[in-house]
Amino acid sequence: MYTLNDLREIITKELEKKEYMQEPYSLFEPIQYILEDGGKRLRPMLTLMAYNLYREDIEKVLKSAIGIEIFHNYTLLHDDVMDDAELRRGRPTVHKKWNSNVAILSGDAAAIMAYKSIEHCEDKYLRRAIDFFNQVALDVCKGQQYDMVFETRNDVTEEEYIHMIYLKTAVLLAGSLRHGALLAGAPEHEYKALYDFGGYLGLAFQLQDDYLDVYGDVAEFGKNIGGDIVANKKTYMLIKALELADPATKEELWGWIEKKDFDHKEKVEAVTRIYDRLGIKEVAFAAIDKYLEKSREILDKIEVPAERKVDFYEMLDEIGSRKK
Amino acid sequence: MYTLNDLREIITKELEKKEYMQEPYSLFEPIQYILEDGGKRLRPMLTLMAYNLYREDIEKVLKSAIGIEIFHNYTLLHDDVMDDAELRRGRPTVHKKWNSNVAILSGDAAAIMAYKSIEHCEDKYLRRAIDFFNQVALDVCKGQQYDMVFETRNDVTEEEYIHMIYLKTAVLLAGSLRHGALLAGAPEHEYKALYDFGGYLGLAFQLQDDYLDVYGDVAEFGKNIGGDIVANKKTYMLIKALELADPATKEELWGWIEKKDFDHKEKVEAVTRIYDRLGIKEVAFAAIDKYLEKSREILDKIEVPAERKVDFYEMLDEIGSRKK
Repeated sequence: MYTLNDLREIITKELEKKEYMQEPYSLFEPIQYILEDGGKRLRPMLTLMAYNLYREDIEKVLKSAIGIEIFHNYTLLHDDVMDDAELRRGRPTVHKKWNSNVAILSGDAAAIMAYKSIEHCEDKYLRRAIDFFNQVALDVCKGQQYDMVFETRNDVTEEEYIHMIYLKTAVLLAGSLRHGALLAGAPEHEYKALYDFGGYLGLAFQLQDDYLDVYGDVAEFGKNIGGDIVANKKTYMLIKALELADPATKEELWGWIEKKDFDHKEKVEAVTRIYDRLGIKEVAFAAIDKYLEKSREILDKIEVPAERKVDFYEMLDEIGSRKK
Repeated sequence: MYTLNDLREIITKELEKKEYMQEPYSLFEPIQYILEDGGKRLRPMLTLMAYNLYREDIEKVLKSAIGIEIFHNYTLLHDDVMDDAELRRGRPTVHKKWNSNVAILSGDAAAIMAYKSIEHCEDKYLRRAIDFFNQVALDVCKGQQYDMVFETRNDVTEEEYIHMIYLKTAVLLAGSLRHGALLAGAPEHEYKALYDFGGYLGLAFQLQDDYLDVYGDVAEFGKNIGGDIVANKKTYMLIKALELADPATKEELWGWIEKKDFDHKEKVEAVTRIYDRLGIKEVAFAAIDKYLEKSREILDKIEVPAERKVDFYEMLDEIGSRKK
């Protein structure tokens, strides 16, 4: 069995081969740029971890796992154009460093590289692998669409928000796990269970991200605290606050949302105080715990030796503990 | 055997089913918008025509052929953003009617729908179908990249230009034919030959388009004559003119290219007169004929009964005659 560090190193080494590089280099350099800047490599890790639940010869699915990382980075390239984001992991985004045409076209090329890479599997798994990947990829698009539509709406419900982050974020984590299990020859009910496990894990993961934007430790979180608050991003925190607030508090919150001219620090502190008063922290904890618990229940039933699942349980514990 | 009109009608009917439509409709409506506005449906036609060289049961590959049309329209969605084009087939482009984020994301969704649709084939052809499609899709991206890079350069050679339009335009026509022949169970040397046939056909097709922009009949061509001249587009006509011009003519041509303030009609007439003097019309004819001849040679060798190839020969004749 491989440790998480082993897997991360194997993924890093494979990415360093830059097998996607070819002429015209101007088309592929932005793909290299976004791929080389690190990130957690969570998605290919999940694919290899799921495969490693059943089999040891992970080199057989390495290229396919890399494909999922390439796909993820393709969505980042296009999302950053759509959100007009300045920075990604501390560096200028591709459309800022080059321009948006470069980000669009290199993203398109990356999507095709992802398909090319993902199909590295035995013929008997090919159709399902492609079918599943198409479903995941389309769900990610739908999630991004809902996210953009929600930014123009003021009445997004918790249910709608959960559905959106499920599509935009959770499904790809779920699909990464299913892909690894499928390619390992896991029985259908198990690769489907791992997909469900990943879906709940992804929801917990995203809600934790929303939570950490408000209550996280700057050094640990690696982003500026309160970025979502400053940008009026409709996170779980804000949606629940708007839902739970009494009329006066609601008006106060809307006052901050609609304010054009404000001091960033002042707004973040004021909104955080409202969240404190409304107990949004505990509401978020409860939701995260609920999804972690659902993940755990599914994981318990995966029929592989307990020691093979240790890393998965630790992942759940880590999300559960990082919130405090 | 099906007539071209039969095939076009079958494709139109299949597209009218709008099987790609699903929630959120705001993501898929722009795909419907660009798909419903017609066009020649040349690519799925070629797939069905190639299949029909060998087999009659074309309904078996209809969905797969439609996938190629969806792919083509996805590239148009993104190209129109990158070129900031106002109109497409006489209607506002998606990014003008909605906005560029819509065109990017709906384009991304269309690309996935294309993959979903194309994989409708027997398992024994699936890997090759996907491999081939990935190669074609990536070549189209490379072609678009060269096209954008060439717009910033003043020294594009004929050879570079032919390579660019081969990737950007010809490869997809070639791939459409290969796809149809592959799915019909044609032997490898025949589906490869049809790919080569389509490559030369595509080159002839694009050069004819370049030619018609200068010398075409407005009513027949359906675009404004001289659009490429007004926009300084580096077409085959302009590249050959810059190559063949004596120093004085070259200076005159550059004068028109660099002029910021000009009367459209005056510029088109002046540049056309230069082309006339240099005999660019005949140069273009010769190139088109060369590629048509290469197509014809390959077509002659395709081992199906002569009557099955009639439509293909007519297509070559049509390109050959429309130029006059």
